[in-house]
Amino acid sequence: MILTVTLNAAVDVTYRVPRLQPHTTHRVTEVVERPGGKGLNVARVLTALGHRAVATGFAGGGTGDALRALLAQETSVTDALVPVGGATRRTVAVVDESTGDTTQLNEPGPTVTPAEWDTFMATYRELLADARAVALCGSLPPGVPVDVYARLTRAARTADVPVLLDTSGEPLRRGLAARPDLAKPNADELAALTGSTEPLRAARDARRRGAHTVAASLGADGMLVVTADGAWQAAPPRRIAGNPTGAGDSAVAGLLSGLVEGLSWPARLTRAVALSAATVRAPAAGEFDRGTYEDLLGEIRVVEHPVGV
Amino acid sequence: MILTVTLNAAVDVTYRVPRLQPHTTHRVTEVVERPGGKGLNVARVLTALGHRAVATGFAGGGTGDALRALLAQETSVTDALVPVGGATRRTVAVVDESTGDTTQLNEPGPTVTPAEWDTFMATYRELLADARAVALCGSLPPGVPVDVYARLTRAARTADVPVLLDTSGEPLRRGLAARPDLAKPNADELAALTGSTEPLRAARDARRRGAHTVAASLGADGMLVVTADGAWQAAPPRRIAGNPTGAGDSAVAGLLSGLVEGLSWPARLTRAVALSAATVRAPAAGEFDRGTYEDLLGEIRVVEHPVGV
Repeated sequence: MILTVTLNAAVDVTYRVPRLQPHTTHRVTEVVERPGGKGLNVARVLTALGHRAVATGFAGGGTGDALRALLAQETSVTDALVPVGGATRRTVAVVDESTGDTTQLNEPGPTVTPAEWDTFMATYRELLADARAVALCGSLPPGVPVDVYARLTRAARTADVPVLLDTSGEPLRRGLAARPDLAKPNADELAALTGSTEPLRAARDARRRGAHTVAASLGADGMLVVTADGAWQAAPPRRIAGNPTGAGDSAVAGLLSGLVEGLSWPARLTRAVALSAATVRAPAAGEFDRGTYEDLLGEIRVVEHPVGV
Repeated sequence: MILTVTLNAAVDVTYRVPRLQPHTTHRVTEVVERPGGKGLNVARVLTALGHRAVATGFAGGGTGDALRALLAQETSVTDALVPVGGATRRTVAVVDESTGDTTQLNEPGPTVTPAEWDTFMATYRELLADARAVALCGSLPPGVPVDVYARLTRAARTADVPVLLDTSGEPLRRGLAARPDLAKPNADELAALTGSTEPLRAARDARRRGAHTVAASLGADGMLVVTADGAWQAAPPRRIAGNPTGAGDSAVAGLLSGLVEGLSWPARLTRAVALSAATVRAPAAGEFDRGTYEDLLGEIRVVEHPVGV
């Protein structure tokens, strides 16, 4: 199985309103609730690709119960979330139907106690015993040590399980120092980490900071991978219109499934870019349009960057 | 005991954000959840005045469980909510800390099935047997017949229990036809009902539509009561600054408690206006500032309107 870690899982709530006008009262016309959090999205896409995926992290309170119920009803992801006393956070996306724009309100999440953290670490180590790869995804809830991704990376390396790290800011910086097999920042995260807005240069810099391989997701420009052996880039053959939420999570699922299946880097890159673009055509994160995905697989060209340039 | 009915109860969620900017992402800095719905607010204020209050209506889903837990933790209101299959709604108030303004997002609420409605009616009739008065409060959830307040008023009259009706629009119009003892519209609701923005004229019109007595809450202008025997008005002696949410619900609690205690109309009016103003000084609906309340009781003057003017 492939393990995904979502320390700050959420119930993602979408409200539709005819028109959002600050400082007035709105009757919400539609309420949709979904299991939320990057690692859960990755796990859903992995199951759609035929892999067994186990999701861990924290869940608590009434919203934690709701999250677990949604996960069981809507996905075939195996639930290995660890109970906590605090309540799982909600994220609320308010969609203005007059413009299609979204206003996002993200709750901070429950504070994790030291005892809960210890329980999580024990569960994580047990799960690693059966894992062929692990993805560490997203932001941290209050109370979790900021070097958590370094600890989780070291535990995975001890268990000989390849690690993909997908986070940002200080948790990314600290996590890289523990030498994960693969880091997947987006262009903004990469620039914040390295100070460089030139992706190839920044990705090489990020490798020097500890990641064996860096896969940078570049939006409409596709994805750039820099490994010890070379650098490759691939982009969709045309602009794909739609909702980009979850596109990066699908790219992570593409990279991880390709790793487990022993694909070459160009093949992994093709899969990641096709899945990412097919997610833009799907209504929600954690889903992708299978027709778009299969069409794109044959159309994506991978370009190799000359060594050292 | 005094019975309050809240057919569209809610979990009221308040989010604080540093500054609300539509079409961007916000980190919510504080999340507060409270039991919500006009009848629940009335019941809380009644218990603070020393009365036993029983709240009925509907509760369902994870949010229904959360509502009941909050009611048990935070209030001494007796929970007689009827379970439904749908989930209790949330209301989300987004407070912009840079301006203090609030943007409100109200979910529609669960659809009540005919069988659930029958169960509610049976529960309501049982509760009436012990009730000294009943308040019918707020909007209707989907699936509830629009003439529901007329039915509930008739059942209360059959049981010889005085009825206060506090709603708006078509449910108010239909409810008045069943001749409740007291209707408590605010100025806007009264104008929408009667077409008149002159409160005394509009309140007399509302009496002709069926209510034995009309108590109109007029914001800073206090409250106007028109009965078969006369008309009285009272206002706070000075402008009270603060949050008016729940002020009308506290006025209902003042009127109902005064009725049960056998107070004169001027005394009921004084209590309702003092409670309403003291609620403006409290942080949330269902609460009031006791010092402000007690100070105001001695300061409010009641004016009698000449008959027929």
